[in-house]
Amino acid sequence: MSDEKTIFKKIIDREIPANIIFEDDHCIAFYDVSPQAPVHVLLIPKEEIENVAALQLENKELAGHLLLTAGKVARELGIDQAGYRVVANCGADGGQSVDHLHLHILAGRQLKWPPG
Amino acid sequence: MSDEKTIFKKIIDREIPANIIFEDDHCIAFYDVSPQAPVHVLLIPKEEIENVAALQLENKELAGHLLLTAGKVARELGIDQAGYRVVANCGADGGQSVDHLHLHILAGRQLKWPPG
Repeated sequence: MSDEKTIFKKIIDREIPANIIFEDDHCIAFYDVSPQAPVHVLLIPKEEIENVAALQLENKELAGHLLLTAGKVARELGIDQAGYRVVANCGADGGQSVDHLHLHILAGRQLKWPPG
Repeated sequence: MSDEKTIFKKIIDREIPANIIFEDDHCIAFYDVSPQAPVHVLLIPKEEIENVAALQLENKELAGHLLLTAGKVARELGIDQAGYRVVANCGADGGQSVDHLHLHILAGRQLKWPPG
């Protein structure tokens, strides 16, 4: 990671606006500015972790909290009955565009296969 | 979930074969039989949890372990440098086909956007 703040760190620090729909001590969720489905939310940890590949043992509880929070946010959005897809891109082949771990939560239409 | 074992539970119980590439006390990883990328692995917990929506607080450590293990399996497969995508389908709109939590790990080509 470069020393410059990522766009997600700037959102966490309230330096740029975002449509935030959930926040707790460890993570924050907001709508993706380029939605790929009727519902498209990003869930990120406040701690700066680059991606799934960078997760260390000390991050295990946070990683678990993130997955559980994805389910919680989905319930609050009312998309849990119809269903949704959770996606984490890691590195170039994964299509990762911001070097800060984020879970995409997509819903509101039938997600297709393959997943990209 | 119905009382009948899912295909993943049968794989865990060694009742049907799978190309298993990783196993520990809590989870197991094997190649998807319908690969959507040159590398397409499924990582599942041994505990029967339906999906992300069904994760409870008591599953937080397991959920974290799963995400960290996705990174570990990716490193062992040698796909962590080029990158990969992790996908969890939840319910009908998410395209979930087996009612047992599983993470798809896809790599070996440029994953496209949107993710399905």
